[in-house]
Amino acid sequence: MSARASRGIVVSLMGLGFGAGHAAADEGMWLLTRPPVEQLEARYGFKPSKEWLEHIRRSCVSMGASASLVSRDGLVMTNHHVGRRQLEKLSTAERNLLETGFVARTRAEELECPDMEVNVLWEITDVTERVMSSAPPDMDAAAANTARQKAIAAITKEAEESTGLNCRVVTLYHGGQHHLYCYKQYTEVRLVMAPEGDIAHFGGDTDNFEYPRFCLDMCFFRIYENGKPLITDDYLRWSPKGASDGELIFAAGNPGRTQRLYTVDHLKFLRDVSHPDGLASLWRREVQLLSFTARGLENARIAAGDLMGVQNGRKARTGMLAGLLDPAVLDAKVADEKKLRAAVAANPDYRAKWGGAWDELASALNSYRGWHRRYAALEGRMASGGSRLFSIGRQLVRLAAELPKPNGDRLREYRDSSLDSLYRRLYSSAPIYDDLEINRLESAFSHVAETFGADDPLTTKILAGKSPRDRAVELVRGTKLADVAVRKELAEGGTAAIAASTDPMIRLTYDLDPEARALRKRDEDELEGVEEEAYAKIGAARFAVLGDNVYPDATGSLRLAYGAVRGYEQDARKVPAFTTVAGLYDRYKEREGADPFKLPRSWLDRKDKLDPGTPVNFVCTADIVGGNSGSPVVNRKGEVVGLIFDGNLETLVWNTIYTDKQARAVAVDSRVIIESLRKIYDADHLADELLGE
Amino acid sequence: MSARASRGIVVSLMGLGFGAGHAAADEGMWLLTRPPVEQLEARYGFKPSKEWLEHIRRSCVSMGASASLVSRDGLVMTNHHVGRRQLEKLSTAERNLLETGFVARTRAEELECPDMEVNVLWEITDVTERVMSSAPPDMDAAAANTARQKAIAAITKEAEESTGLNCRVVTLYHGGQHHLYCYKQYTEVRLVMAPEGDIAHFGGDTDNFEYPRFCLDMCFFRIYENGKPLITDDYLRWSPKGASDGELIFAAGNPGRTQRLYTVDHLKFLRDVSHPDGLASLWRREVQLLSFTARGLENARIAAGDLMGVQNGRKARTGMLAGLLDPAVLDAKVADEKKLRAAVAANPDYRAKWGGAWDELASALNSYRGWHRRYAALEGRMASGGSRLFSIGRQLVRLAAELPKPNGDRLREYRDSSLDSLYRRLYSSAPIYDDLEINRLESAFSHVAETFGADDPLTTKILAGKSPRDRAVELVRGTKLADVAVRKELAEGGTAAIAASTDPMIRLTYDLDPEARALRKRDEDELEGVEEEAYAKIGAARFAVLGDNVYPDATGSLRLAYGAVRGYEQDARKVPAFTTVAGLYDRYKEREGADPFKLPRSWLDRKDKLDPGTPVNFVCTADIVGGNSGSPVVNRKGEVVGLIFDGNLETLVWNTIYTDKQARAVAVDSRVIIESLRKIYDADHLADELLGE
Repeated sequence: MSARASRGIVVSLMGLGFGAGHAAADEGMWLLTRPPVEQLEARYGFKPSKEWLEHIRRSCVSMGASASLVSRDGLVMTNHHVGRRQLEKLSTAERNLLETGFVARTRAEELECPDMEVNVLWEITDVTERVMSSAPPDMDAAAANTARQKAIAAITKEAEESTGLNCRVVTLYHGGQHHLYCYKQYTEVRLVMAPEGDIAHFGGDTDNFEYPRFCLDMCFFRIYENGKPLITDDYLRWSPKGASDGELIFAAGNPGRTQRLYTVDHLKFLRDVSHPDGLASLWRREVQLLSFTARGLENARIAAGDLMGVQNGRKARTGMLAGLLDPAVLDAKVADEKKLRAAVAANPDYRAKWGGAWDELASALNSYRGWHRRYAALEGRMASGGSRLFSIGRQLVRLAAELPKPNGDRLREYRDSSLDSLYRRLYSSAPIYDDLEINRLESAFSHVAETFGADDPLTTKILAGKSPRDRAVELVRGTKLADVAVRKELAEGGTAAIAASTDPMIRLTYDLDPEARALRKRDEDELEGVEEEAYAKIGAARFAVLGDNVYPDATGSLRLAYGAVRGYEQDARKVPAFTTVAGLYDRYKEREGADPFKLPRSWLDRKDKLDPGTPVNFVCTADIVGGNSGSPVVNRKGEVVGLIFDGNLETLVWNTIYTDKQARAVAVDSRVIIESLRKIYDADHLADELLGE
Repeated sequence: MSARASRGIVVSLMGLGFGAGHAAADEGMWLLTRPPVEQLEARYGFKPSKEWLEHIRRSCVSMGASASLVSRDGLVMTNHHVGRRQLEKLSTAERNLLETGFVARTRAEELECPDMEVNVLWEITDVTERVMSSAPPDMDAAAANTARQKAIAAITKEAEESTGLNCRVVTLYHGGQHHLYCYKQYTEVRLVMAPEGDIAHFGGDTDNFEYPRFCLDMCFFRIYENGKPLITDDYLRWSPKGASDGELIFAAGNPGRTQRLYTVDHLKFLRDVSHPDGLASLWRREVQLLSFTARGLENARIAAGDLMGVQNGRKARTGMLAGLLDPAVLDAKVADEKKLRAAVAANPDYRAKWGGAWDELASALNSYRGWHRRYAALEGRMASGGSRLFSIGRQLVRLAAELPKPNGDRLREYRDSSLDSLYRRLYSSAPIYDDLEINRLESAFSHVAETFGADDPLTTKILAGKSPRDRAVELVRGTKLADVAVRKELAEGGTAAIAASTDPMIRLTYDLDPEARALRKRDEDELEGVEEEAYAKIGAARFAVLGDNVYPDATGSLRLAYGAVRGYEQDARKVPAFTTVAGLYDRYKEREGADPFKLPRSWLDRKDKLDPGTPVNFVCTADIVGGNSGSPVVNRKGEVVGLIFDGNLETLVWNTIYTDKQARAVAVDSRVIIESLRKIYDADHLADELLGE
């Protein structure tokens, strides 16, 4: 991270807002059912209508991260880095779409994606009452959590049966509210256009989370229904002129997870345990993947996605941890919590109902310190390193065990409402690379040995008397799970097939399952259960003391952020809001075109065709985090003016607290999208489709 | 690490040797006072004379790692990667010797090194009796260790006064013997020749510890005395024809640390605690340094040495840990230890004297698990990240505190025998780069916070209410210790000057000193003391049961290894012993000259001048480890045929156990040295000097 002015002053000012939940400046990831009407009116004189909000909601889609419908014929726009896993799956050693890019010249050339889902949020219902009343107040936290989970399973199943939509209950305010979200799901999706990787992520890891920036981080897919493009009126129109400096804009998407309402103890847990542990894993894996990719071009191709994910996660977590290690950030949180707790303590009724919540949570977190690594090993990636084969093995083992149970008693990812997606991934024909699988497993197995010691029963169970590498080779060469037909056979054969299987990956995941499940149970009972109850109380206290104009922390579901296109000042220099095509070529020249500042052939050959003044990227104050990648940026008319793909380094503290002195969301400008489609990619047909021509 | 045949079989065969200390094959890092006479005679029909050994001893020098005198006029040969810290210190943004290489066309052009020492081992005396008798048998381990340390200080001081040489006591067999080594020290050293970095470490981290290999990892210095080149007869002659396949060779140098005599518990401590911890630090730092160097060319230049060191350490430790996680390795150790302990248990006298040693050591190591990280933080690099300014601050603080004490009571690095070297480093004019210092300290401070939590008193003392970055900036910008005159003033001012100093780096290192010293004391009392006593007993037991034809573990002092030039088989392919100039250009072509497989201009322009059949690197079975870099490889006549610079991946297990199925030391061939001096570098004068022409 380069030298920056200290964030201290910025954050102290924010502290005056009394609680991050109380929006100051352009803060907030708002529910579309509870938009920031007062703030928009007061700050920008804008009042979104019900229709405006509904149109945004039905045009913005979820596909892991964020995306939007941008044409009448079902064209979907997202980031290149959001679509890249599909690009990988459509690539081979001979046809590397990540390197060459792709443009379908006709609809017939559009490439079918092997396992993609696009979800449109169709209906929202508040089910808080029904979920909460399923657990009487005198129940202990673990039993109450189980009761709520059963209620959620029942609500979801009923809704799916009555609507025919894909439904899930989203828990808001870490347990304060529960909303039923029902989605229209599309699974016939084709790739339409992707630029070359070198221009999509120009500047690579070096410029990631930085600004000024010059990335064409875009990618287009098309939704099909029964072999025909989806025809819809729920799509965003394209702004003919783009955004201007200072203009009000909105970003609608699916921010992943924030911790703005966390207690101070919970933030300290992140700071002292969770982030350091997470970073240690990422550093480790980044170095191993760099070594793996340096061994040859095919290695580099097949591991590029893993590497990019790890580097992005590392840079993000580094910034988040740095934020929590900045005393100004935590001091503001401490001051806010102190005020809220004092207000609760001063009111006997409040104190009786909510006063104990902070300590209950602290005690649960404290106990969690003792077993969180083991839980991560067995239920997280630590024991699998992201291995596809391991994950398939575990899914088969658990499917067999879960399916015979009543829906509400199952692990949540095996409930009826999740099965379609699960089978789609499980039976995906996406390629599995032995060398990468071996590398992932060797790394994961060694990680377990390093963490728990080689004599720990977990390690000896995993290694089975072999070295990490020999064991990884044995499993990958020995398993038949790369074959989709074998997976189907095992899935259909249920418990009997699993019990009889001699497949080494089935046997390993089966053997690990009892301890993994025990820790999963412990997590749900002792952590999640306590967390939800404590935050429900803290949330109620916050509403009572401070009013309820509070947005919930991000939950990976649709939110609306707003703000202005606006530059900032850094080290006494002005950083303008927009970058241009001319600036892109300057940056290329300055870094002598060395990786990761290479430009693809097309951009070198056609430089003179481009208008050098075309805006490439811009920054705005909209409140976004990881998961917002691919969010459309729209103007007051709801027209597309950009495409969110990143935030600068200063936004990394946004997971905990919003500041707008220097922190900015970064977007691709709608004008460079049209300019490059026409002049670099000879794709007038797509530009015309976007512009509705 | 690429796919390899399992090492299992190899190691099991070694197990038959009953203990790693019992040389099988070409095993052993032998004391020059106790050479492997029987083995050499039996295996190769060679009997080294006393003169042969003495000549080797006085021609081989220590300069951190290994080196040798190779001309009558004081020319010293070592590896480029051993000399690179001096090359860095002689470089600036405008004159980057690591990139361009350097050739002095005349003696007058030779460049004076700012702070270099070359040591020639002149005399060796066994002082075991005197050291051991200083601690009566009934003393507890801590007091005994203190007594031995005092005896060692007295012996060293006496020897220095009587001989005028630089002396130190080397503790062998982890406490079993103590030898007094007296060195002739030269401090006037000039740089004569270094090739470009791209050919010196061709293949970079990717090919590090690999074979086949194509590196010109060499570098030449010259010793001066009073402004004139050293004239000596103690130098190695150059072989006119180089080595041939199968030929007996020797490598004489200073292997750093091995653990071949470690108990199983001690190895498990390495496997489960020390290596995982060390690797975690290295992964972390490698990623941070890669980010730092990616920000610009000058960053890349100033951090290149740190990065190369970290990458080398990471690859080495990865291999060592992989070795310990290979059950075959540990099984062999367990079996050997079981036999030895059974033999001790079966003899009442042995049992009484030595039987408790294993458990005493295990118990000390077990307790060490609880505080080793804190010790590493305060006495190792964790709290300083390798910062020069931090290290200078600590040295000044400790100098002031230690110098007034009697010699024998001081921390060992502040005893009279160490002061010359200490002052040389402390007053070195080598450049200190603010940006790199800030990066090192920010990283180190964050590491402490991640390890102990941000609320730990150690963390709060270090951070002083600031974020890691702000604190690092404050210290680096605020301290005056980059100025050598300021250092001298503080060193000469003693305790009063330190107490009065407001320099922030002095204040920080001063404040950290009490806890650091307490942990240092604990380490000496509870770990080192117990270790030495336990290993003295285990060593005695080993000698009694198995005879004393056992070489001690490496201690960073002069050893003689022997073996044959010999290729090996891998994945059913023959790997020949020698690589050639033609192979170098093939490898360059195969990797399209992409970094780290670039070649310097000189090697591209003059390709046609070179004899493509010239051997570049070769492998041999000589038993070496880290620290042996720069060791000359000599033939029976004591003539130079090569220059050790690496081992292949399979040697990484050599820290624990020697195998020779695939594991090989890697050397630069003497012929490519002459060939490149003449045809690439126009340095006939140096080639002639080496050949004595």
